[in-house]
Amino acid sequence: MKIFTGNANPALAAEIAEYLGVNLGQAQVSRFSDGEIVVKINESVRGADVFVIQPTCSPANDHLMELLIMIDALRRASARRITAVIPYYGYARQDRKARGRDPITAKLVANLITVGGARRVMTMDLHAGQIQGFFDIPVDHLPGVPILAEYFRNKNLENAIVVSPDLGGVTRARALADRLGSAIAIIDKRRPEPNVAEIMNIIGDIEGKTVIMIDDIIDTAGTITLGAQALIERGAKEVYACCTHPVLSGPAISRIENSPIKELVVTNTIPLSEEKRSNKIKVLSVAP
Amino acid sequence: MKIFTGNANPALAAEIAEYLGVNLGQAQVSRFSDGEIVVKINESVRGADVFVIQPTCSPANDHLMELLIMIDALRRASARRITAVIPYYGYARQDRKARGRDPITAKLVANLITVGGARRVMTMDLHAGQIQGFFDIPVDHLPGVPILAEYFRNKNLENAIVVSPDLGGVTRARALADRLGSAIAIIDKRRPEPNVAEIMNIIGDIEGKTVIMIDDIIDTAGTITLGAQALIERGAKEVYACCTHPVLSGPAISRIENSPIKELVVTNTIPLSEEKRSNKIKVLSVAP
Ligand SMILES: Nc1ncnc2c1ncn2[C@@H]1O[C@H](COP(=O)(O)O)[C@@H](O)[C@H]1O
Ligand SMILES: Nc1ncnc2c1ncn2[C@@H]1O[C@H](COP(=O)(O)O)[C@@H](O)[C@H]1O
Repeated sequence: MKIFTGNANPALAAEIAEYLGVNLGQAQVSRFSDGEIVVKINESVRGADVFVIQPTCSPANDHLMELLIMIDALRRASARRITAVIPYYGYARQDRKARGRDPITAKLVANLITVGGARRVMTMDLHAGQIQGFFDIPVDHLPGVPILAEYFRNKNLENAIVVSPDLGGVTRARALADRLGSAIAIIDKRRPEPNVAEIMNIIGDIEGKTVIMIDDIIDTAGTITLGAQALIERGAKEVYACCTHPVLSGPAISRIENSPIKELVVTNTIPLSEEKRSNKIKVLSVAP
Repeated sequence: MKIFTGNANPALAAEIAEYLGVNLGQAQVSRFSDGEIVVKINESVRGADVFVIQPTCSPANDHLMELLIMIDALRRASARRITAVIPYYGYARQDRKARGRDPITAKLVANLITVGGARRVMTMDLHAGQIQGFFDIPVDHLPGVPILAEYFRNKNLENAIVVSPDLGGVTRARALADRLGSAIAIIDKRRPEPNVAEIMNIIGDIEGKTVIMIDDIIDTAGTITLGAQALIERGAKEVYACCTHPVLSGPAISRIENSPIKELVVTNTIPLSEEKRSNKIKVLSVAP
């Protein structure tokens, strides 16, 4: 077995290799002067079972192309089987035609990965489970909930309740609550008229409770921080938040810093660049 | 017929649409907060013969993904036939395994465009004609030489000779020379030992002549400016240079400004950003 990494999350790849007791494969993924990607595989992979670890996080297009070019090089170098390990699957939120003439980019990406030569895909917490069906090759789909649950279980929070920040996340909230032995509540957003502020209705009793909000992706953090605000206003004692994929783009960090969220627990499917670090953020590893 | 453009070269697309007397298709190609591309096609394309004009110039990965997502959206919106018009084909220089375990990214890109849903490709001056064979769909491959030749013919340069900056470009030089009724010469570079400066041997008589150097791509401009220097040293009267694709990355502009090149004639397959403009550069349009 050989493990290679692109530039998306080399720290995670190194951690995984260490867990497995293997060295990371020798490869170089760099740029020509005009920005085109150059891949050099510096060891034999003939007949090998090869894993390429590369979340397609921001910049998604660059990380996706790195992955595709690495797979192309490994395939042409006679690797026996190539597995694309994509802890965070970029473009997962473009998974259906919400309006006429929308692309379905999550499906396009599945086709690109397949035509690139991957024989198998491993990923975590796809924004929509249906994306597994976009592939005709095997997909191993791992949940982030067990890792997040273990952390909160060890915290021994009293009187805890799990809250889904929207209706779409109820199943995920239920899975976390099951592991913590707690109840759930749901934030039900409604916009009575266009261009009028949303009304946050909380389904379930959160008064005096320690809330754990859970989402799959936290991107600009609008949903989670407004939700936390509403929960505190309705009497929650304190609010924790967690997610598998910390995209954290644009105003996310300042929103989190200025929100009543006590701690945001995330995994390392996406590495946090310098400017995305915050004392409020706790990172758990998915490597094990 | 409908013509759409991404963000790679909207000026060229607008020019082409004007030549054809049609309006550019209504579409929006923008970014989400995390950098993922959003495509909105804002008019019906049902049953239409659609052309997407998008050179995959730098940033190549972004421009390629814009193209693929636009094609995906157009195909799902029931366009009858989609032609990818790629005046500059990025990754064309990664067209073979130069060393063991190299990827062949030009072929990967051909597969991506095909699986994306293009039914036909139009492109100009592929770095290697073989790339046409990387596609199983029809490829229209247009030469830049006629446009460059017309410009130099109108200049009425006396005692002109066309020079290829390397052995690989001889056929292109011959094609330009044919149209100008002139002879050709060739710069033959040789590196006697690794890490020793190259020796430039000029095959053909350039003394006292007005030289026109031609290449397909000028990227960092090392080849063309060192070549121009050598030609002047061996007695050329003056040196013009031309190419179809002005990549002009890294030190290109300062090298050209500081070289003996009198004028660099390029086409608009790749738009020149602010910092790539120079008084020495003349841009011809491929739109007609
Ligand atoms: N990268 C992205 N950033 C923000 N929104 C996105 C992104 N990709 C897709 N979307 C939008 O997010 C919505 C999907 O979210 P959901 O309804 O939670 O599945 C759709 O309206 C998409 O247009
Ligand atoms: N974007 C690029 N920038 C610079 N060199 C490249 C690029 N893509 C490929 N190459 C290299 O250019 C060479 C191909 O040029 P050629 O021999 O003229 O076909 C190969 O050695 C490639 O590794």
